[in-house]
Amino acid sequence: MLGLMQNQPLLISSLIEFAERHHGDAEIVSRRVEGDIHRYTYRDAARRARQVANALDTLGLAFSDRVATLAWNGYRHFELYYGVSGSGRVLHTINPRLHPEQIAWIANHAEDQVLCFDLSFLPIVQSIHAHCSTIRHFIALCDADRLPQDSGIPNLQSYEAWMGGHSDRYSWPSFDENSASSMCYTSGTTGHPKAALYSHRSTLLHAYASALPDVMGLSARDSVLPVVPMFHVNAWGIPYATALTGAKLVLPGPGLDGKSVYELLEAEKVTYAAGVPTVWQMLLSHMKPQGLRFSSLQRTVIGGSACPPAMITAFREDYGVEVLHAWGMTEMSPLGTVCTLKNKHQALSDEERMSIRLKQGRAIFGVDMKIVDDAGQELPWDGRTFGNLLVRGPWVVREYFKGEGGDPLQDGWFPTGDVATIDADGFMQITDRSKDVIKSGGEWISSIDVENLAVAHPAVAMAACVGMPHPKWDERPIVVVVKKPGAELSREDLLAFYEGKLAKWQIPDDVVFVEAIPLGATGKMLKTRLRETLKGYKLPGT
Amino acid sequence: MLGLMQNQPLLISSLIEFAERHHGDAEIVSRRVEGDIHRYTYRDAARRARQVANALDTLGLAFSDRVATLAWNGYRHFELYYGVSGSGRVLHTINPRLHPEQIAWIANHAEDQVLCFDLSFLPIVQSIHAHCSTIRHFIALCDADRLPQDSGIPNLQSYEAWMGGHSDRYSWPSFDENSASSMCYTSGTTGHPKAALYSHRSTLLHAYASALPDVMGLSARDSVLPVVPMFHVNAWGIPYATALTGAKLVLPGPGLDGKSVYELLEAEKVTYAAGVPTVWQMLLSHMKPQGLRFSSLQRTVIGGSACPPAMITAFREDYGVEVLHAWGMTEMSPLGTVCTLKNKHQALSDEERMSIRLKQGRAIFGVDMKIVDDAGQELPWDGRTFGNLLVRGPWVVREYFKGEGGDPLQDGWFPTGDVATIDADGFMQITDRSKDVIKSGGEWISSIDVENLAVAHPAVAMAACVGMPHPKWDERPIVVVVKKPGAELSREDLLAFYEGKLAKWQIPDDVVFVEAIPLGATGKMLKTRLRETLKGYKLPGT
Repeated sequence: MLGLMQNQPLLISSLIEFAERHHGDAEIVSRRVEGDIHRYTYRDAARRARQVANALDTLGLAFSDRVATLAWNGYRHFELYYGVSGSGRVLHTINPRLHPEQIAWIANHAEDQVLCFDLSFLPIVQSIHAHCSTIRHFIALCDADRLPQDSGIPNLQSYEAWMGGHSDRYSWPSFDENSASSMCYTSGTTGHPKAALYSHRSTLLHAYASALPDVMGLSARDSVLPVVPMFHVNAWGIPYATALTGAKLVLPGPGLDGKSVYELLEAEKVTYAAGVPTVWQMLLSHMKPQGLRFSSLQRTVIGGSACPPAMITAFREDYGVEVLHAWGMTEMSPLGTVCTLKNKHQALSDEERMSIRLKQGRAIFGVDMKIVDDAGQELPWDGRTFGNLLVRGPWVVREYFKGEGGDPLQDGWFPTGDVATIDADGFMQITDRSKDVIKSGGEWISSIDVENLAVAHPAVAMAACVGMPHPKWDERPIVVVVKKPGAELSREDLLAFYEGKLAKWQIPDDVVFVEAIPLGATGKMLKTRLRETLKGYKLPGT
Repeated sequence: MLGLMQNQPLLISSLIEFAERHHGDAEIVSRRVEGDIHRYTYRDAARRARQVANALDTLGLAFSDRVATLAWNGYRHFELYYGVSGSGRVLHTINPRLHPEQIAWIANHAEDQVLCFDLSFLPIVQSIHAHCSTIRHFIALCDADRLPQDSGIPNLQSYEAWMGGHSDRYSWPSFDENSASSMCYTSGTTGHPKAALYSHRSTLLHAYASALPDVMGLSARDSVLPVVPMFHVNAWGIPYATALTGAKLVLPGPGLDGKSVYELLEAEKVTYAAGVPTVWQMLLSHMKPQGLRFSSLQRTVIGGSACPPAMITAFREDYGVEVLHAWGMTEMSPLGTVCTLKNKHQALSDEERMSIRLKQGRAIFGVDMKIVDDAGQELPWDGRTFGNLLVRGPWVVREYFKGEGGDPLQDGWFPTGDVATIDADGFMQITDRSKDVIKSGGEWISSIDVENLAVAHPAVAMAACVGMPHPKWDERPIVVVVKKPGAELSREDLLAFYEGKLAKWQIPDDVVFVEAIPLGATGKMLKTRLRETLKGYKLPGT
């Protein structure tokens, strides 16, 4: 027997309709590519999103056709979030930091029909448009009088000329809530990028969950600054969660430097900000020498990579801002865990609480997680045992766009590619990437632990720990080290340095000194490239 | 094209599984009918809910079969919430305050197979069991050694004997999230009661929404006391929202008097409590003479009926507790609006904020609302115009159980039976019930406004305003008054008292003095009965 509640699909259009109706005069403030500040309201945004929907209808775009963006966080991008998905098309946000060749590959793979881009990215579009066989319309996110002349891009139109002439009357269509709403390609360290294809249902469930007190804690009294980009996993869903709650939305455009972010935080009385550690490091570096303070900021969620303890301490103790560690993935819409404390932790000492805050946090309702060994057996939640982290839930992918990469699931669970511990209270801590962890005689050794200890040595500039084949133990760790300029350090010195800090079997078997460790575009060490350079290396005694 | 996120139905069983896995040691504390305090954890509750599921399987109950409860807020009731719905049956919570004949009617109409009841309600069950033709199993929520002897109830079992012997291993079944999960009959002032039939989907969406910062704002650091009963619209969904967030749950059992509630608030460090004004009045009356304070309570949501301004002020100013006015209905799962302020209100004076706090609040995302005139035309949101309040959303009924009462919807919207204003910021205020509002020459007059002014007169004990037929104006208001013992008051005195306080056309045409006004079981004035006693009355000048 079915219940007798109203059948109302969970659709992205209902978010912007709700924001217009119930929070019509709440503000959306954007720093534009032009450098100035633009401000308007949810009512204005809703009106213009409907114009976008009419403009897409006029282009003849079918249901589920893809509309791509190459854009910063700004109000026009926000309008596309709603106009494209709300009218039944799929918003494809492309990361402009990728190599242009990769961008063209992605646009072709997604079969994008339209590409909307900020003028900052004109050179990219100029270099790739001839290779994007499916894109029929190029739209520059600018006023008509800013449209570049002789760009070489066929039929280039300005966004304002394109959508501005259309009616702002539009009835959002109703359809299956499982329909695709938006997509995002993972950068993928190996092989071609693969796309997560979100649905209206997954987006709305994620939006509800993301605004919960133990997640981002958003209310109509907040002013929210997503420094995390709208071209990367929908800015952690913030453009949806703010519409759901009626919070003020502050969009930083291309101004991600410390000074620009600080000015926006202060001018717009931002209470909540979300970003990656690099951005917050730039902000703190800007503030400290000048003795600047926050007058409104209350809390920040930090994700993307592990947050250095010193940063958590600085935010909390020097600036009175609560820092929440979070973890997620493109494949998870992205939120999986947030590190908010429980009732029982309130009586702990500051130091004890800090040790919890360094973890990536506990699962949000809607995300289930577990750790397993290589045979898929579930491992205990004791805070020490680490295993492959698997997740499942209604905003976790079940497969990639076009089936690329085959069926990624293991018995219905998505393998995150991370290795983690989970403690008895359900707090998860990433210890390594699955491909980097060293498997020695059935025990796992975290490459990150080995590296963190190495760089704590005063003579070490950079260190990478990798596993090397071993006849008895399968793998044994070695540490590859770049010394600081002029520093003296022997193999024996460094191995002795590990004693008492790691269990004996976790200490590397060898130290290899090199001039440099290969790095990727985002500054991450490329261990696959590093391993290639170690071809022919043999562990001592083998 | 569909999105590629995991297909995971929204099921009530996932709440208790999540709570067990991620908040296993968070507490559930109950005051028992026996008078003592019982405490255990979500882990224990989850285990026992699985035993209940196995016990129901053994009884041979089919999917969607109804299991009724007559019970206070307590841990066994909590286990039934999950064991019954989680295993695919429908939990039918019956209001024990109804007349026993009505309870029997409801049990028969719902075709309940099992009735679980607290021993407080043994006399009710003794008086009705012979008339409940579908109930095959009577279960007293007590230990085996407390089971009453010679109760006259056939095959009466104790809950502990019934479920205690079953395995605590059970795989919650997966099924359509639109399946019925639970039901609640409205008390219905006219005709037979009608039942709202909730689904797993509606319950989970409501649970997400209810925990939002602008709704109940629940986190794993909260200790939550629902004084609002689990036999009435699922205690506003709190037993689900606490599992979703991992909050501590404190269940008051039958102890709703001021002393019992106060002791529980303090002993269990309750941070959040929800109830109706009557209960809070008892609490404040207990505290004031003794100069008692709250040591942990931070906020309370008040609904069920309008909260007197003096109570809001007392909680806020005398006790430092934030009071949130809320509004909902059995047909709405029940939450519709909560009165949390917006960003723009933070700069207002205390007085201005108070005028907002008296309103029932603004819509939660998931509930859409509008006011319309009798022709169904939408009315403006100006805070003055009032009209019939209509709502829609995924946790609002589309029809009643067994189609009773026909199709209640108007163009897809559910008519609440309330008359309300909505202001430009979306804050709704109930001004009357649709059946009580007086329609005079196309203008509507709030009976509540007329009554509130009458009882402000020092000589008036009770007042009811009703509309009387008028040849020119359709209806005109009169006020029916019970004088305070020994007080002197003339018709002219009271009519003069209205001058300057209401517009001339809103002032009643007449005053009728009576000895008593008929009241219902819950203390509400029965205007239909009152109108019968006024049969033959004629307005002056008609």
